[in-house]
Amino acid sequence: MRKFIVTGLLLCLVCGGFAFGADEGAAKSPVELLEEKMQNNINIVWTCIAAFMVFFMQAGFAMVEAGFTRAKNAVNILMKNLMDFSMGTIAFFVVGFSLMFGASKGFIGWDGFGVGDLAKAGDDWSWTFLIFQTVFAGTAATIVSGAMAGRTKFKAYLTYSIFICAFIYPIFGSWAWGSLFHGGGWLESMGFCDFAGSTIVHSIGGWLALAGAMVLGPRIGKYGQDGKPKAILGHNVTLAALGVFILWFGWFGFNPGSTTVGDGEIGRVAVTTNLAAAAGAIIAMIVSWIIGKKPDGSMSLNGALAGLVGITAGCYTVTPIGAIAIGAIAGGLVVLSVYFVDGILKIDDPVGAVSVHGVCGAFGTLACGLFNAEGVIAGSGESTGLFYGGGFGQLGTQFAGVLACFAWAFGLGMVLFLAIKATVGLRVTEEEELKGLDITEHGMEAYSGFQIFNM
Amino acid sequence: MRKFIVTGLLLCLVCGGFAFGADEGAAKSPVELLEEKMQNNINIVWTCIAAFMVFFMQAGFAMVEAGFTRAKNAVNILMKNLMDFSMGTIAFFVVGFSLMFGASKGFIGWDGFGVGDLAKAGDDWSWTFLIFQTVFAGTAATIVSGAMAGRTKFKAYLTYSIFICAFIYPIFGSWAWGSLFHGGGWLESMGFCDFAGSTIVHSIGGWLALAGAMVLGPRIGKYGQDGKPKAILGHNVTLAALGVFILWFGWFGFNPGSTTVGDGEIGRVAVTTNLAAAAGAIIAMIVSWIIGKKPDGSMSLNGALAGLVGITAGCYTVTPIGAIAIGAIAGGLVVLSVYFVDGILKIDDPVGAVSVHGVCGAFGTLACGLFNAEGVIAGSGESTGLFYGGGFGQLGTQFAGVLACFAWAFGLGMVLFLAIKATVGLRVTEEEELKGLDITEHGMEAYSGFQIFNM
Amino acid sequence: MRKFIVTGLLLCLVCGGFAFGADEGAAKSPVELLEEKMQNNINIVWTCIAAFMVFFMQAGFAMVEAGFTRAKNAVNILMKNLMDFSMGTIAFFVVGFSLMFGASKGFIGWDGFGVGDLAKAGDDWSWTFLIFQTVFAGTAATIVSGAMAGRTKFKAYLTYSIFICAFIYPIFGSWAWGSLFHGGGWLESMGFCDFAGSTIVHSIGGWLALAGAMVLGPRIGKYGQDGKPKAILGHNVTLAALGVFILWFGWFGFNPGSTTVGDGEIGRVAVTTNLAAAAGAIIAMIVSWIIGKKPDGSMSLNGALAGLVGITAGCYTVTPIGAIAIGAIAGGLVVLSVYFVDGILKIDDPVGAVSVHGVCGAFGTLACGLFNAEGVIAGSGESTGLFYGGGFGQLGTQFAGVLACFAWAFGLGMVLFLAIKATVGLRVTEEEELKGLDITEHGMEAYSGFQIFNM
Repeated sequence: MRKFIVTGLLLCLVCGGFAFGADEGAAKSPVELLEEKMQNNINIVWTCIAAFMVFFMQAGFAMVEAGFTRAKNAVNILMKNLMDFSMGTIAFFVVGFSLMFGASKGFIGWDGFGVGDLAKAGDDWSWTFLIFQTVFAGTAATIVSGAMAGRTKFKAYLTYSIFICAFIYPIFGSWAWGSLFHGGGWLESMGFCDFAGSTIVHSIGGWLALAGAMVLGPRIGKYGQDGKPKAILGHNVTLAALGVFILWFGWFGFNPGSTTVGDGEIGRVAVTTNLAAAAGAIIAMIVSWIIGKKPDGSMSLNGALAGLVGITAGCYTVTPIGAIAIGAIAGGLVVLSVYFVDGILKIDDPVGAVSVHGVCGAFGTLACGLFNAEGVIAGSGESTGLFYGGGFGQLGTQFAGVLACFAWAFGLGMVLFLAIKATVGLRVTEEEELKGLDITEHGMEAYSGFQIFNM
Repeated sequence: MRKFIVTGLLLCLVCGGFAFGADEGAAKSPVELLEEKMQNNINIVWTCIAAFMVFFMQAGFAMVEAGFTRAKNAVNILMKNLMDFSMGTIAFFVVGFSLMFGASKGFIGWDGFGVGDLAKAGDDWSWTFLIFQTVFAGTAATIVSGAMAGRTKFKAYLTYSIFICAFIYPIFGSWAWGSLFHGGGWLESMGFCDFAGSTIVHSIGGWLALAGAMVLGPRIGKYGQDGKPKAILGHNVTLAALGVFILWFGWFGFNPGSTTVGDGEIGRVAVTTNLAAAAGAIIAMIVSWIIGKKPDGSMSLNGALAGLVGITAGCYTVTPIGAIAIGAIAGGLVVLSVYFVDGILKIDDPVGAVSVHGVCGAFGTLACGLFNAEGVIAGSGESTGLFYGGGFGQLGTQFAGVLACFAWAFGLGMVLFLAIKATVGLRVTEEEELKGLDITEHGMEAYSGFQIFNM
Repeated sequence: MRKFIVTGLLLCLVCGGFAFGADEGAAKSPVELLEEKMQNNINIVWTCIAAFMVFFMQAGFAMVEAGFTRAKNAVNILMKNLMDFSMGTIAFFVVGFSLMFGASKGFIGWDGFGVGDLAKAGDDWSWTFLIFQTVFAGTAATIVSGAMAGRTKFKAYLTYSIFICAFIYPIFGSWAWGSLFHGGGWLESMGFCDFAGSTIVHSIGGWLALAGAMVLGPRIGKYGQDGKPKAILGHNVTLAALGVFILWFGWFGFNPGSTTVGDGEIGRVAVTTNLAAAAGAIIAMIVSWIIGKKPDGSMSLNGALAGLVGITAGCYTVTPIGAIAIGAIAGGLVVLSVYFVDGILKIDDPVGAVSVHGVCGAFGTLACGLFNAEGVIAGSGESTGLFYGGGFGQLGTQFAGVLACFAWAFGLGMVLFLAIKATVGLRVTEEEELKGLDITEHGMEAYSGFQIFNM
């Protein structure tokens, strides 16, 4: 696996089924054939379990987003989480997977590789690869709901969720990860490295969330007459914390699972992932403590997520010390970014999705060029195990990928949400927003029997 | 594995330990011996992890049932969930496992294969098989609590939970899955196919739930003077949604785990399972939207579960398109069934357990005969990859199994619950019901400190 | 693996990477080399997944502790759970791992094996072993927060959490598990057996919790004028129940994962673990029913945990019947212990951490000497598969380990918490305690919008 990465110019995510059979020249011995077969089965077991853990992140996102928003909109945000994954699953199966992994000339894959062919091909690896990629697409999709919480029409959100999994996510994905199956994209041929998707999954979601929150405008009451932001507290921090623990757990599928190979690299990637999350939580707590005089619970939880998003690109290529550095910086960055987006840009992002996934995803992708170890990444400058082994070229390439992602996701997001606004309508009425989306959109409330203040 | 299924007449769930060693005739080469050993270990790792995920479904059921019922009965329903698994574990270990998998003449297994022998036999596979089967029994057991919520005596429920895991579930199980270990049952010898248990696990639970809800009668206030059903809303839809996500996650152990083999089929079964769940959620939402003018949160969540229950029988044998079809139909069916049970039959099933597990389990088992692919199932009609490859004979067999399940579980359930009613007593007093079971049965409340309306 | 345990004098937890390569004498055949490689990869996949499940126990602890305490302190206890794992991760990585597994003369490991060397060594197993051990350290750390809930300064808790993962846990661990990597400790050389850590993980946490609760003193209002304890109910039993299910699930990583080998022993250990948990829940319910006239929800949940803690030491060496016996006794013991600590000792332990982890951990470690099967443990008395195979010598050794743990953890805990009290300060002011730690320590509340009585 490692050799493949070294020689294979940043094919960061390699399907196990392909790792073998590379040198078909000589006839294989029974022992070699057995190794292929057994390793393939180990890879499948591991990759499937990792996929299931990534699926479980949906529960984490649902709890974080519901917990950090108001009780009167809880059913609505849960429905959005359920539906973006459900509609995303079908959309990615019917269209997205083909666009992302079909044979490609570098920009969009399309060779009819899809539903029918996958069913016919039916080789062992295809199905495992499909379920793994489906849950990744679902992750990108579900990031957006939090930033648009409390004011978005349900129909509008359903429309969006088809587009992201059918087109927006998979086309960008084909540029950077297309060669994992059939195709091959321009970003990966440049040497862009994003092992598990800081940019390809998280920033895509984050920049779409930014576009959505901008087109929507802030919730009623978010900004006072003086333009200063008011905190609108979430209704259940306990569930938000549960959500963060679930996400942290699922990330052990997300990052180590992206090796798609059942070998010792799993443990190594798990270590970097865990260290970054821990460092992110600690530093976010400290920075919030300095700025706000008290260690803030929401910020600390978002700090753990920031560390996880940050390490996602470089989890395979950085040292543990590099991972701590990335996590720590991401943890500080997310606090500053939340204040910046909320207070300076005056964009209302109820759960901090833009900062966590967009900003820290971009940072993590750049950091992947700075902190890589042992010249694993092509370009091979010297490495002390902590700093800068990629050469400035690598950093430039990373920057290009980050920029391409922003242009693509934010640009298309603006077009999409403006188009939805002009057709289906994007935002509920003022009366609906004040009453809460649970009653007005779904005819039910989340906490029947509890005395709740309407805020 | 596949060959085994084709030739083995629907031994849908095959223990890996048995798959090998079939042709003991010739001496095996070191490479063959190593393959057996390694594959056996891979199977064990996979099957154990799948079992743990199925165990985790207990948390999902607990959250769904607690969330969809009232705050004053939360401790009670959680205790029932904890205890049906705990007592079920012991009952299945001491009695049930023997009845289900002991050597059998086709109806009831009993060869003393149980506690002592398992401990002595102690081969690698036995223990893994035991834990896997235990959590399946626990799933069947826990389905019933939701349908009987809010009015059942705790002692009565404990009595029931011993019977299902000691006798009701394992005896039916021996008819359809007995040959997986020692025995062999009349249903499987007919060619009945239920890969992971739409009928054998879910319908068993669903029809027992139906019997329980009927013998109990509706909760006070459920039906007005005019006989029309009134909605009694759950107290925490957020936790119900969390429960559905947990169940969906656990189902990746339930269905793909039922291969009990660590190979590429895991990914394939995961794909069909996931597609059906997604389709179920979407169609349930749409149907509830059409009928009730708003996309209903509870129905959508139950739709995902309906899709999962529906695909459980055919997850191994249908194509992805077939899976979408099964999930979609199950998602529509569950909404109609809930209205039918609630409004026409006037049976009070607080969480929809009868519709989700009973009705959709039966449907899924029939659909397994309609949508199977590639003649994997014996009977081998033509298959387009979507429709009908089993021949009418297959459909007839499936129908026989569904009918046998209903007769057995509903019939025995009526006897059991009537017997409990006549002895221990099945229902709490009116005063206890109005006060709530948490205070009256357990002397505590679930949400100390919160202002809650008594409803 | 089994042979290794028999001959290896209680090296209970053996890293897979070491199990092979024991007899390097003869050149290995290609088949032997392949077996090593494949088994190593299977071990890594299994051990990593087990580690992730153990990590997820953090979510379980957070829910149990938050659920069983008051709403006004929810953010605070969640922050403590997040931070003890985060700071513990860094502390264990930088210091603790070296102390626990570095080459040792029997008391403290220190050979510079740490961050840098691990990164350089970089063999397959090291990383997997590191992540597995990190989550175990995190488990020990997080036990304490529950016992100190509702009145501990946040800064004081942060200070504590560094010490446990950097020094207290790993030094004791090196005495009993040090030889798993480099070192070797005096307890294991005596023949002390604690397979997955009833003493080494749980009692360590439990006795530290005892020291913390004693130094702190009880919450305001816990003991009336007459000195009788008053129940201070938790604010969300539903989440506490969810937490117990999560912990039970995670324990399938904790106990079976401690084999660190992907073979049939996983299933066997899963069976003993599950039976003990079930028996613990049942007996705790019955005992609470007898004492308090009603089946108590909190006690039943703690009973499941007691069974799990109890079986942790002996899960590998006892028969299933022995596991039921251990779980049942632990389930009864925890109820009596809670009454004893609360009512007789008058120590305020809000979630019962001392009884669950300290007392049942000690009991489980002793029981491991009583109920072991087949003379697996050295000392080899006769065994009926249920009782006493270890000889009195074994029981004495177990007792020595239990005592050493109490002396070390309780003693150091007293010193640590008294030192914190004298410097940073351990307890919040009376006013802060009455207002709740969420507002006073973190400037936020957990359930914005809900009407909550301040208690």
